[in-house]
Amino acid sequence: MIVVKIGGSEGVALDAVCQDVAALVKSGQAVIVVHGGSAETNEISEKLGHPPRFVTSASGFTSRYTDRITLEIFAMVTNGRINTLLVERLQKAGVNAFGLSGLDGRLMVAKRKDAIRIVEHGRQRMLRDDYTGKIETVNGALLQTLVATGMTPVVSPLAISPEGDALNVDADRAAAMVAGAVGAEQLVILTNVPGLMRSFPDESTLIAHLPRVGLEQALSFAEGRMKKKVLGASEALDLGVSKVVFADGRVEQPLQNALAGKGTVIS
Amino acid sequence: MIVVKIGGSEGVALDAVCQDVAALVKSGQAVIVVHGGSAETNEISEKLGHPPRFVTSASGFTSRYTDRITLEIFAMVTNGRINTLLVERLQKAGVNAFGLSGLDGRLMVAKRKDAIRIVEHGRQRMLRDDYTGKIETVNGALLQTLVATGMTPVVSPLAISPEGDALNVDADRAAAMVAGAVGAEQLVILTNVPGLMRSFPDESTLIAHLPRVGLEQALSFAEGRMKKKVLGASEALDLGVSKVVFADGRVEQPLQNALAGKGTVIS
Repeated sequence: MIVVKIGGSEGVALDAVCQDVAALVKSGQAVIVVHGGSAETNEISEKLGHPPRFVTSASGFTSRYTDRITLEIFAMVTNGRINTLLVERLQKAGVNAFGLSGLDGRLMVAKRKDAIRIVEHGRQRMLRDDYTGKIETVNGALLQTLVATGMTPVVSPLAISPEGDALNVDADRAAAMVAGAVGAEQLVILTNVPGLMRSFPDESTLIAHLPRVGLEQALSFAEGRMKKKVLGASEALDLGVSKVVFADGRVEQPLQNALAGKGTVIS
Repeated sequence: MIVVKIGGSEGVALDAVCQDVAALVKSGQAVIVVHGGSAETNEISEKLGHPPRFVTSASGFTSRYTDRITLEIFAMVTNGRINTLLVERLQKAGVNAFGLSGLDGRLMVAKRKDAIRIVEHGRQRMLRDDYTGKIETVNGALLQTLVATGMTPVVSPLAISPEGDALNVDADRAAAMVAGAVGAEQLVILTNVPGLMRSFPDESTLIAHLPRVGLEQALSFAEGRMKKKVLGASEALDLGVSKVVFADGRVEQPLQNALAGKGTVIS
């Protein structure tokens, strides 16, 4: 099993990814796709008069501030627009795609982070009323059942709390949890950069191979959103995934390139 | 098996419906929910600067004109907002709901109506470039599999063409096709009126029971959206469903009332 995360940022060549997924599936390789939704959620939130707001946690991670209105927009865009249109695109490429979010059949259960310590104007304060969660369990059997019946699951980054609330979850870490739950050999994270760079954005500092022990140090130089991908990689390896690849999703044959080891291979 | 269609129009008491679904599921009765999405799609289309447009076919049916932009908004709102939030609401009520559209695993395959004869300003003309479809097949086995594993499918009214295009389909007729495909005993269509009236909107003319042979005549006095419900009822009965009920979704215990025969029972 291969789990492929497609970035929510603009620039990933979706048709090229879908062609690659189709070729893999035709060759008998099971694939699960996980996608993000940040860029389009921001755009539509603006249009609907509820502009996005980002916060930085005390530990230095940036994330979306998700009040209930934002959560509903996030669900609409991510699970309705991005997921449905990706399923359509895969179906056109000959893949029997099946879209679902973590709410469906309680696929992904997450703990709600109901209070986050954030840094604002250099001072720390607690943020409450946020509908963001950290995934605790993924129903791998449900995904395996879909795969066994010839379908390719396409997972959107929403989870459900034990109380039944929809939660926004980080898509990279969702992909890591999914990869762990289904016992995937590889997790490929396609993004809009060539991989992990020691000194972002200098592409000559691209790291071709990172041993597992180098992950902690990588957290210190990983820039912005790349921090979460490093965390995801770490979680995936902890869950038994053999290899994680960060690769460029903007090129021709992005998935084939990644599987051939182009990008940053972590193992 | 009971199939329940929840209208997209405002006013249906969603929490009351979810409580009723939960009670049924707990009693061992399998349920499939199908929902619409018109009202919210109109609202969000307006906000996004692409106001809805409706057309009347030569045979007198009113439907949404669905160009590609409208289709994508319809998918976003119906499959992302309405479906996801309904799944959340059912999960909170203790139902292991599972949302899907007709694209997922090719659940509902429809023929695209690529040219519709419409009436505009009293004259007929052909409308092309419309992404509306008429469902031809529903994968009942897929729904049965979900039900057999303890889940309650929640179906949004999007289908896929044989070529892989997403299509907007009528939710009442989708519910009828779903009911037929799973061999449901009953199809309950909850709406924002008490049932079929001989002389709309005079509620004293509510028809409590309509024999199957009366359906053709009902098409002549059914008003607006009710025409499609009458067509759906007719299709469901043709597919072997024993009973179709049109009932008020705005009241307390809307589904229990409908199952007790309140509204218009067609059999």
